[in-house]
Amino acid sequence: MLTVYSKKHRLRDSKGEIHGGEIVPPFECPRRADIVLDRINAVGLGEVIEPKDYGLDPVHAVHDAGYVSFLSTCWDEWVAEGFGGEAIATSWPGRTMNAPHIPRNIDGKVGYYALASETSISEGTWEAALASKDVALEATEHVLAGNGAAFGLCRPPGHHAARDQFGGYCFLNNAAIAAQHARAKGAERVAILDVDFHHGNGTQDIFYDRDDVFFLSLHGDPLDAFPYFLGHRDEVGTGKGAGFTANYPMPPGTEYSAWKAALQDALDRIAKAKCDFLVVSLGTDTFKDDPISFFKLGSDDFTDYGALLAGLNLPTVFLLEGGYAVDDIGVNVVNTLTGFENALR
Amino acid sequence: MLTVYSKKHRLRDSKGEIHGGEIVPPFECPRRADIVLDRINAVGLGEVIEPKDYGLDPVHAVHDAGYVSFLSTCWDEWVAEGFGGEAIATSWPGRTMNAPHIPRNIDGKVGYYALASETSISEGTWEAALASKDVALEATEHVLAGNGAAFGLCRPPGHHAARDQFGGYCFLNNAAIAAQHARAKGAERVAILDVDFHHGNGTQDIFYDRDDVFFLSLHGDPLDAFPYFLGHRDEVGTGKGAGFTANYPMPPGTEYSAWKAALQDALDRIAKAKCDFLVVSLGTDTFKDDPISFFKLGSDDFTDYGALLAGLNLPTVFLLEGGYAVDDIGVNVVNTLTGFENALR
Repeated sequence: MLTVYSKKHRLRDSKGEIHGGEIVPPFECPRRADIVLDRINAVGLGEVIEPKDYGLDPVHAVHDAGYVSFLSTCWDEWVAEGFGGEAIATSWPGRTMNAPHIPRNIDGKVGYYALASETSISEGTWEAALASKDVALEATEHVLAGNGAAFGLCRPPGHHAARDQFGGYCFLNNAAIAAQHARAKGAERVAILDVDFHHGNGTQDIFYDRDDVFFLSLHGDPLDAFPYFLGHRDEVGTGKGAGFTANYPMPPGTEYSAWKAALQDALDRIAKAKCDFLVVSLGTDTFKDDPISFFKLGSDDFTDYGALLAGLNLPTVFLLEGGYAVDDIGVNVVNTLTGFENALR
Repeated sequence: MLTVYSKKHRLRDSKGEIHGGEIVPPFECPRRADIVLDRINAVGLGEVIEPKDYGLDPVHAVHDAGYVSFLSTCWDEWVAEGFGGEAIATSWPGRTMNAPHIPRNIDGKVGYYALASETSISEGTWEAALASKDVALEATEHVLAGNGAAFGLCRPPGHHAARDQFGGYCFLNNAAIAAQHARAKGAERVAILDVDFHHGNGTQDIFYDRDDVFFLSLHGDPLDAFPYFLGHRDEVGTGKGAGFTANYPMPPGTEYSAWKAALQDALDRIAKAKCDFLVVSLGTDTFKDDPISFFKLGSDDFTDYGALLAGLNLPTVFLLEGGYAVDDIGVNVVNTLTGFENALR
């Protein structure tokens, strides 16, 4: 399987995230991607290529223009304000506030465009986010060209990024950008299957009212896990998108057997919905040793479910999302990919 | 003038707040209240008494029961979760998220009930917040008893606390609790005049649909200043409360002359609205040297506007809100109170 990778991911190297009331080294760190790349090379998964620059048009196809502009200038505006740390949201439009006006002040703008404050915007974040969407687009192009499957080693991840909000380590929604690109290039209905431990709230947000992109997510129950405020079972899409969002929240301690049953249901639904293209939001934080998650998958389980995904027989783009058990992320990601490939043979 | 003070304010002694992407010593610190008390004693403003315990009924009269319960157990739940720092929100119901479900997880609950993340919930915060509302209630009782005016040296402050959200250093809305108490004890219409630099979003939230409490706020334009997402001029109340909210946002660099003109307009409106009781949310962060604000009042200006407030000839409760130029907070607060008292002579 082809891998698309850009070393520009290293430009996303935030100094800290807020966790448990402290600023700690970010769980989402550059080493994650390099460990995955090492494993890909170690097992000889296939060629590794750099992406082209696809520009901003595919970004604007799913993100708000004001948000994209904000991301592109945030760091410079923050530095100009004289702050000592990275750009972290400290206020936001609360539940009973209206937000018809976007603040002028960069501190206020960060709050307006954030959905979480663990994630800073740091020097190089925008450049890395751009490279990450190029990785997703290059992998998508490769699959659209008839090559069956490809892996976009995206970093930073994307699935928490909504149409106009960042957070959860995500800035541009790589999976949404890829799915929209596939649609623009002729796919009739794209399925986005999000197997990351955390609900893909951003992807859901972007496609919630559409029937041409079917979003399905298996994740920790939002009553117990980030992003907390989306991902319930009763969120099923709206308008003509009704029935084209499917959520499988699962409780702390969920073992592979229960997770696999949910996956099989999701795969059945994808098959019945006559999708002709598949984007997999591949997070490996379902792993039993993940430091911020609570499912119990073992490394062999990734191989097993990779094979199940192959059963759909769809052109498939895998895009890296989360996974913070860094020492194991390479094995777990590549197990999924090799499980998929071997099942096709 | 009588002052009500509780040394329990010292129980609110958070270790840090998030500011400019760093954890810094909180601007809202115990020394603030003690500097004010020292100045009160130095000028011989009058007797200083401790409050009685008024219990939770006056709190439930303006705050959501679930929110009050959350505040009372948050610190213990946070500690039980094993986090290393104080309780700081890192995620929240973003603009495009629904929040019909309140998370079970304490990290998620903190985010649900927060409107800002600079403010931690720390050991003792709840006890200090309870004492602060008792200070407000005791001062209110004193004025209701026919004593003209009193000063509640509240700490933590309250005006950012909404019906069910904390933030901006505030947990229980002392001014709202006081105003509601005055209503319950016979006042027909209470005016809450908020002269703190920051918009009193919480107080506005609590009374937005009511005509028996008239909320007026002079503050830094929310396009430029916290709380960013409320306090615009076009927010005027709703339903029968239409016309009983008045906002005076002002730009960076505002001098006393412009601020005073806004105050005079607010006082005219209070006079015309036939209010019979006044609560002053007294923040002194309008001071020219305040570290997190941008108005340009000098210490003598506080004396001057204290006298203007006396012109309303209303039973008046002053409650301390913000003010972070700590060395000057005593002089500025007491100047307002003595300006008020001297104008009555």
